[in-house]
Amino acid sequence: MGGRKEGQGPLRKYFDYLSDDSRFGAKSWEKAESAMLRLCYATACDKAKLPPSDVEYVFSGDLLNQCAGSAYAMRDCGAPYFGLYGACSTMAESLSLAAMAIDGGFCDTAAAATSSHFCSAERQFRYPLQYGCQRPPTAQWTVTGAGAVILRREGPGPYVTHITTGVITDAGVTDMNNMGAAMAPAAYSTLTAHFEDTGRGPEYYDAIVTGDLGVVGSDILRELFAADGVELGVRYMDCGRLIYYIESQDAHAGGSGCGCSASVLCGHFLHGMAEGSWNRLLFAATGAMMSPTTNQQGESIPAICHAVALENARC
Amino acid sequence: MGGRKEGQGPLRKYFDYLSDDSRFGAKSWEKAESAMLRLCYATACDKAKLPPSDVEYVFSGDLLNQCAGSAYAMRDCGAPYFGLYGACSTMAESLSLAAMAIDGGFCDTAAAATSSHFCSAERQFRYPLQYGCQRPPTAQWTVTGAGAVILRREGPGPYVTHITTGVITDAGVTDMNNMGAAMAPAAYSTLTAHFEDTGRGPEYYDAIVTGDLGVVGSDILRELFAADGVELGVRYMDCGRLIYYIESQDAHAGGSGCGCSASVLCGHFLHGMAEGSWNRLLFAATGAMMSPTTNQQGESIPAICHAVALENARC
Repeated sequence: MGGRKEGQGPLRKYFDYLSDDSRFGAKSWEKAESAMLRLCYATACDKAKLPPSDVEYVFSGDLLNQCAGSAYAMRDCGAPYFGLYGACSTMAESLSLAAMAIDGGFCDTAAAATSSHFCSAERQFRYPLQYGCQRPPTAQWTVTGAGAVILRREGPGPYVTHITTGVITDAGVTDMNNMGAAMAPAAYSTLTAHFEDTGRGPEYYDAIVTGDLGVVGSDILRELFAADGVELGVRYMDCGRLIYYIESQDAHAGGSGCGCSASVLCGHFLHGMAEGSWNRLLFAATGAMMSPTTNQQGESIPAICHAVALENARC
Repeated sequence: MGGRKEGQGPLRKYFDYLSDDSRFGAKSWEKAESAMLRLCYATACDKAKLPPSDVEYVFSGDLLNQCAGSAYAMRDCGAPYFGLYGACSTMAESLSLAAMAIDGGFCDTAAAATSSHFCSAERQFRYPLQYGCQRPPTAQWTVTGAGAVILRREGPGPYVTHITTGVITDAGVTDMNNMGAAMAPAAYSTLTAHFEDTGRGPEYYDAIVTGDLGVVGSDILRELFAADGVELGVRYMDCGRLIYYIESQDAHAGGSGCGCSASVLCGHFLHGMAEGSWNRLLFAATGAMMSPTTNQQGESIPAICHAVALENARC
């Protein structure tokens, strides 16, 4: 699911639904986010030919205070619900836990879902929209979008073959308008751990995809690996860079938010994997774990990155 | 861990540490909450004779916006971190997922932790403390407290033998000062599902413990079961009723918050299980999933309850 701005971007054709006014028929931006996620989840169940009542676990979270976007989206779904908070890393966190629930033998079918909405996020994290506040070049644009994945024990693939769960990494960045710089060290930490743990190098993957480092953060990530003598090359992409025409859509440093990596993974990349454009994809969604309160109290921004290996061939 | 008011309550002797001014040496209430949870986690590792670096997964969350209490508490812990949001049900949610991670074969050691702080919660959810707002009799008092459990594949017990994951239940209650009424139907739903799924009746357990239904909610839960012909009897207790002297401590309808069920479980009940006072305990922590924003927009309060069976004998 996406909003108007996402529908004007280069990935338009991979969305199942685009709300032209980003309201999704709801009266407030918070309700719009829940309506979007509810529609997203229903669409995912429908495309999987699965009655929502057959889903055994839902793993979901979002950026809103008390993760209310997810709680209100899922209050009618009837499935056992695990609420998560991983900031913009939620798509990878939910995929990780859903895959663990199946692989561990606790269920056969689980859902992983998340959302963000520009208008609900902006007024919660920054300023009221009406204020028209100017944004610095390092600022990212919270994606109005949602993604949901149904995981099944006997699914058609792609398969979650590995997960690497992130540790909280704090690089000392205090600028809420430069999330890319705050999150890049977390991505570096998790990807490095993944390569060490699995014995795989970046060349194993057709695509290595970070969540929303954006223009600033993805350049930093390349530099961090280059300092180790590792060139990530063209296989490395960032959802925050892909979702908008950065220049013409005035997206500053690119997209961000849970819905950024969720909609780009579920739309663009899973379509591409189904078509064989990529067979081995490492999805590394990043999240900044501060709150406006901690930021106002002078705290730096803790960040996290969870990596999920998606492969068309079962290991 | 607990604060001053908790140290004046009937469960005083089961706390490992009580901060006399509830500040835990920190400059703001939010920092105090993180400091408390950090100390709690370190104490749990220490009591388990476990270097924090040996913990393979941490599952944690709290009530603060963006779950910042946990993120800042755990940013130096170095362990892979899954952030959760289950409101006051977080202790049961984190225990469930930590037990699944071990039983599923993904790790040998995991931690489940959560916290709440009266002063950070009050100003976030309700009014600034200085305002001195009057509270209705149905209101609950957010516990300043934290709890952490280390789960190990080869631990000394008690063991997590069953979990029942809650569905989001909305009884239509809109009063933020009556969480007990909003959450009781969720507890009824999850406990009923647990009894049906396991074939166990309430009499199987020495203790059935809800998280923070308080005086109002726990009475409603008894009535809901009584309507089915099931008397919960004296084996049924509620952490929110136990933690304070309700009358003399002016606790209105009792304690609430993630730290309520967490500190009462980790202190009072796990001590009691170690001493053999209870051998089979069903821990059913409840959470109200609204936010101040959704409440102001007229939404009712969705609630959830996760149940975890703790038994001294391995099944």
